[in-house]
Amino acid sequence: MTALPRDPHAAPPRQEVTLAHIAKLAGVSAPTVSKVINGHPGVAGDTRRRIEDLVREHGWRRRPDTTESSAVVEVVFESLDSMWALELIQGMDEVTQAYGMILGLTDMRGRRSPHAGWIDQVLARRPLGVIAVSADIGERQRDRLASRSIPLIALDPRGEPDHDVPSVGATNWNGGLSATRHLLELGHRRIAMVNGPDTLMCCRARLDGYRAALDAAGVPADPTLVRTAPLYVEGGRGQGTALLELPEPPTAVFAANDLQALGVYQAAHRAGLRVPEDLSVVGFDDLPLARWADPPMTTVRQPLRKMGTAAAQMVMALAAGAAPDDHRVELATRLEVRSSTASPARAGHR
Amino acid sequence: MTALPRDPHAAPPRQEVTLAHIAKLAGVSAPTVSKVINGHPGVAGDTRRRIEDLVREHGWRRRPDTTESSAVVEVVFESLDSMWALELIQGMDEVTQAYGMILGLTDMRGRRSPHAGWIDQVLARRPLGVIAVSADIGERQRDRLASRSIPLIALDPRGEPDHDVPSVGATNWNGGLSATRHLLELGHRRIAMVNGPDTLMCCRARLDGYRAALDAAGVPADPTLVRTAPLYVEGGRGQGTALLELPEPPTAVFAANDLQALGVYQAAHRAGLRVPEDLSVVGFDDLPLARWADPPMTTVRQPLRKMGTAAAQMVMALAAGAAPDDHRVELATRLEVRSSTASPARAGHR
Repeated sequence: MTALPRDPHAAPPRQEVTLAHIAKLAGVSAPTVSKVINGHPGVAGDTRRRIEDLVREHGWRRRPDTTESSAVVEVVFESLDSMWALELIQGMDEVTQAYGMILGLTDMRGRRSPHAGWIDQVLARRPLGVIAVSADIGERQRDRLASRSIPLIALDPRGEPDHDVPSVGATNWNGGLSATRHLLELGHRRIAMVNGPDTLMCCRARLDGYRAALDAAGVPADPTLVRTAPLYVEGGRGQGTALLELPEPPTAVFAANDLQALGVYQAAHRAGLRVPEDLSVVGFDDLPLARWADPPMTTVRQPLRKMGTAAAQMVMALAAGAAPDDHRVELATRLEVRSSTASPARAGHR
Repeated sequence: MTALPRDPHAAPPRQEVTLAHIAKLAGVSAPTVSKVINGHPGVAGDTRRRIEDLVREHGWRRRPDTTESSAVVEVVFESLDSMWALELIQGMDEVTQAYGMILGLTDMRGRRSPHAGWIDQVLARRPLGVIAVSADIGERQRDRLASRSIPLIALDPRGEPDHDVPSVGATNWNGGLSATRHLLELGHRRIAMVNGPDTLMCCRARLDGYRAALDAAGVPADPTLVRTAPLYVEGGRGQGTALLELPEPPTAVFAANDLQALGVYQAAHRAGLRVPEDLSVVGFDDLPLARWADPPMTTVRQPLRKMGTAAAQMVMALAAGAAPDDHRVELATRLEVRSSTASPARAGHR
């Protein structure tokens, strides 16, 4: 009943490598190789690693079948705690449903990497593929997935692309650039940025886009106006408050996500300032709350559903034997101008 | 590597019924029975149904094993589109992770029941259990799950509990009662309710709680003050606007969820009214947005994570052979008083 992943552009299958061949090279029996490949216990660690290395090296591929092994695409979330995550899920679910599969979730609740036992559980479940959302999958875990031909995709990858895991993200640098350029065009010159943790690649890219826009406009970047805070409402509120207490406060704040931007709204209200008359605010993501905010929020739209869809489609293609032709896919962001931005009122800051 | 569900209170296993016994009763071969039980194709519809009926009737139980069949708990969502859904997921994920399993998601995107092919896919995946969130699983689909001893749990069930599927919900009636009583105690007499669709059992219970509170206070219920709208911001905004345009508008609105309540805030602002000075608003759910709203929202807290946890634990217990001792579990709601409610300003409406 389960549809097989098909891709008309799939690469031809690699030369067939048999279990017997791997077994001979490893100096073990074919059933031992089979045990390792199918995630069964009872093979000593050293032997298992030797077999996994050979399997990876020789490009053995599990034969696709129509039962359990192709029924689930696993997703590991660093934090499954906002509409941001839910929109990615909606996109991934669209693809898995079209294939008659389900999306298998694990929430690491803020941990960067899955616990040590996780990879054994995944190998036992034999998913069609694994999508890591803002999560780090260590080298050893990547190798073990590769040894079973289970494709791994990074969705909105957390760190530097220092390995060859295919990834799907958004044009974060462009988003930072267009948000800041919009504020410059409105006449703002003291533009602050509340950024997320600089360990996140997406946040560093947004900051660089902000700096590039200032630079292009000949506006000197003031380091006191760049703040770092967690990507939640409280983070934006805290740094927003600190920015508004500066001797020379900003007339506009670009926040690294909508939640932080909502926190900046609250900091403005507490300081007796109106958005956008006294302070312009730009967010990032375009979650539903951006439309519901009062005033509706100008924000950089990330195509989150499409990003989820692209990651799941990449899993399907790789599982069907396609070679990843683009190691990094970046989908376009777009500025949504709503009502939280206006020209600065106080001429002194122009 | 996968932990087996264990429950110290599990009932002793029923008398063992063999495949051969079922095969004899059905007048087919044991392999045919095995095919049906394991979700494989190649058995005619009539025969399959006869075998399923016998299997259910005689209480055959699949032997628990440590591989694929116990690795996934499936969740079917009517709509996976708000933080409400995400908090339920967090609760369910807590349990599946503790068992080394994953949560397998399907989003029906607003459809009430899964499509016809869904049940075949589920049977092929052989999950440990299925949790239906505000979704209707038809009788034939319930029977087919039962025939494989795959437990089904209804989480926040949509309709009447007219069948014996165990369910987990919240004390919605009590929530409606305490929200309305809070407004009465503040001195409100013209209290409106913006409710969700009355096909949803939870919404009917909230409305009945609202009516019971008015009745107990001797305040006549005015049917023009009870409105129905979709459980989204737009729904609350539309009916909130209509209520505020009445010749004798309400001084307080109880909304059936936080999103609707946020829409009522917006209706008030558009009408030039302040919350809570001119209009008190109470929501339901206590999603993160209730804390972020301006002013922070008084709302009825649903223990969504706990509801998710309870449903997943019920799956584990039933899969381990426990008899469901409570067919319907209702977890307590609690009023969270924040800043969107106050005494009515205009004495004329007291």
